[in-house]
Amino acid sequence: MAPDVRRPVVDLTEAEARRALPLKWGTVPDDVIPAWVAEMDYAVDPVVLEAVQRALADGVTGYPLDHYPELGEAYAGWAGRHFGWAPDAAAVRAVVDVTGGVRLAIDVLSGPEGVVFPTPGYNAQHRLAGITGRAEHLLEVPASAERAEIDLDRLDRLLADGAQTLILNQPHNPWGRAFTRAELEGIRDVVLRHGARVVCDEIFAPLVLPGAEHVSYLAIDGTHDHAVAVVSASKAFNTAGLKCAQLVVPSAADRARLDEEPMSRNDSYSALGVVAALAAYDHGDPWLASLVERLDQQRSLLGSLLATHLPEVRMRPLEATYLAWLDASAYGHDDAAAVALERGRVRLSDGASYAPGSTGHVRLNIATSPDRLTEIVERLAKAWT
Amino acid sequence: MAPDVRRPVVDLTEAEARRALPLKWGTVPDDVIPAWVAEMDYAVDPVVLEAVQRALADGVTGYPLDHYPELGEAYAGWAGRHFGWAPDAAAVRAVVDVTGGVRLAIDVLSGPEGVVFPTPGYNAQHRLAGITGRAEHLLEVPASAERAEIDLDRLDRLLADGAQTLILNQPHNPWGRAFTRAELEGIRDVVLRHGARVVCDEIFAPLVLPGAEHVSYLAIDGTHDHAVAVVSASKAFNTAGLKCAQLVVPSAADRARLDEEPMSRNDSYSALGVVAALAAYDHGDPWLASLVERLDQQRSLLGSLLATHLPEVRMRPLEATYLAWLDASAYGHDDAAAVALERGRVRLSDGASYAPGSTGHVRLNIATSPDRLTEIVERLAKAWT
Repeated sequence: MAPDVRRPVVDLTEAEARRALPLKWGTVPDDVIPAWVAEMDYAVDPVVLEAVQRALADGVTGYPLDHYPELGEAYAGWAGRHFGWAPDAAAVRAVVDVTGGVRLAIDVLSGPEGVVFPTPGYNAQHRLAGITGRAEHLLEVPASAERAEIDLDRLDRLLADGAQTLILNQPHNPWGRAFTRAELEGIRDVVLRHGARVVCDEIFAPLVLPGAEHVSYLAIDGTHDHAVAVVSASKAFNTAGLKCAQLVVPSAADRARLDEEPMSRNDSYSALGVVAALAAYDHGDPWLASLVERLDQQRSLLGSLLATHLPEVRMRPLEATYLAWLDASAYGHDDAAAVALERGRVRLSDGASYAPGSTGHVRLNIATSPDRLTEIVERLAKAWT
Repeated sequence: MAPDVRRPVVDLTEAEARRALPLKWGTVPDDVIPAWVAEMDYAVDPVVLEAVQRALADGVTGYPLDHYPELGEAYAGWAGRHFGWAPDAAAVRAVVDVTGGVRLAIDVLSGPEGVVFPTPGYNAQHRLAGITGRAEHLLEVPASAERAEIDLDRLDRLLADGAQTLILNQPHNPWGRAFTRAELEGIRDVVLRHGARVVCDEIFAPLVLPGAEHVSYLAIDGTHDHAVAVVSASKAFNTAGLKCAQLVVPSAADRARLDEEPMSRNDSYSALGVVAALAAYDHGDPWLASLVERLDQQRSLLGSLLATHLPEVRMRPLEATYLAWLDASAYGHDDAAAVALERGRVRLSDGASYAPGSTGHVRLNIATSPDRLTEIVERLAKAWT
């Protein structure tokens, strides 16, 4: 398919969404609109879905290969086209999912010292440090900060006090930030000063919205000896359940350490997930362009809706992702998500699951239809005001 | 479908097998017959495949639920029908795969002391103890032993010397053994004496062949406070790539410890894998009956072929699995698998990957067509003799 022939984003009806998204839609009562977990109410790109369906019809339900050179080629091609920087294809390894890749990288490549986790942070990665047997050091962005940024002085102190690894989620969920090159260089300088490591979760890289750009941490000079990135097509293409993300390991020494590990360290990725990733990277651009356009429209719509219905909600500019981090504390509800559910019949993600004590904060998923987003904000207004 | 309407085992052609099984078939040259990794050259049960295809057509490519009560019900129903003993449905948790479940159980439930791993043992679980940060103690079955058994005196010494967990694979790969109730009681007695734990990998339980029976370790009195079992439909139904096994945790205290863990400990199983497991457990009996019949026939055929073509090969009775552990050392080749590949154009699994120093041993996968198995043994005879 020629790259300029766009494939449209197709909204799921409520009935379709309940069948397709058992976690997001299947866990709420019929009168509740779900806007919580990071899944989109859109049909899977047909080109990706058909590739997986063909593989399944062929009976590809068994073991994957130990290594997929074509996956590295496909990711490198994608990264070059989308981000203007690409790793060596040989630097790419399949992993089961992004969090599994972060854990693998810390387990194998990091020293035993503590792990810095910026908060508010992806709830599934809270306490991940502890799973690897390491102390977790939270690096907090205060709710009052005008812009969500890594506090370099605080990072410096945490690394001086003995932490050795930074989990850097960028673009950031739930901050909605795409870090600039200058910010990433600042982080690098602090990390280099302490001989620390960075594990960069770049799952939202394909979903940087117009006005910002994705710069991989690995595209910054001087990062290759201390950093890896975990990337995936799964967030942009709604295919987290197919089980294949990619670990990008630019250092040959790090790759050697990973490749020497017993296979049980990393043998849970799926051949169907590899098929989906290849289809997305090689043939997904015409769908992704439509998706980013849609998310940009949803972002604008959210701004208008908040201005109209919830003017006291504070929201930083949404540069990337489809997840808006809302400070609704002006409306006086400590648990704004609970009030939204009880009174508004909207399920949001509770801010406290991203940062302890985030009173009055919620995360709102805007990857739905314009009508549904409108209904959501109107319901929130009734619930909170 | 009525349980008495058998569905046949359908042999894959070579072209179909190359498409369906990229690891087993895709990694050997065109003139080589693969008989190594534990996958079967049979079409997936159409009832299981269609269930997954329906889910995929519905767009189920995203996150699974946190918990599937129906998976526990389905497994308990299956276990009751097939093994005459069933766990409480509430004891069952989804995990990404069997080795992932073994790792999870050791990580969360075992103390920091060493892990006993009987050898020859499943190659993907070699060095798994080390991944959990524990010492690995090999409990060897000597190649000369008439019957492959857990040496209780040796187990007793290893536990007395500080090991605390036994990984018990039963039915055993590659021993081909289904342990008897008396054997399991003997193991239990030693384990109880030392206050140790057992993590039981029962992935081959559905593939116990006529003449033997599967007794779950959890069906033995007095095991529930120290043992878990990891089970799966994936080996019997060739669906390892769909990513859902089950951890059976009979102790409420153990379940509480697992359920308190951060979600990143165990969030990699797939909704499609759950669909496949449910279909296999609820509707797979008519296919499995045909499969076991076929494997029984292949076992008999192997016996005849060896008697005719390779009378010096020593093989213990194959009670379970489709994996024959062959001692070909009488033919004088230290690396019998390498000779089979080079001269015979048959890929076997090298015995040394299951037990260090298993000179002259190989593992042969008989889950293929009668014609192909005949060709394999004829080729081995030419290569080795």
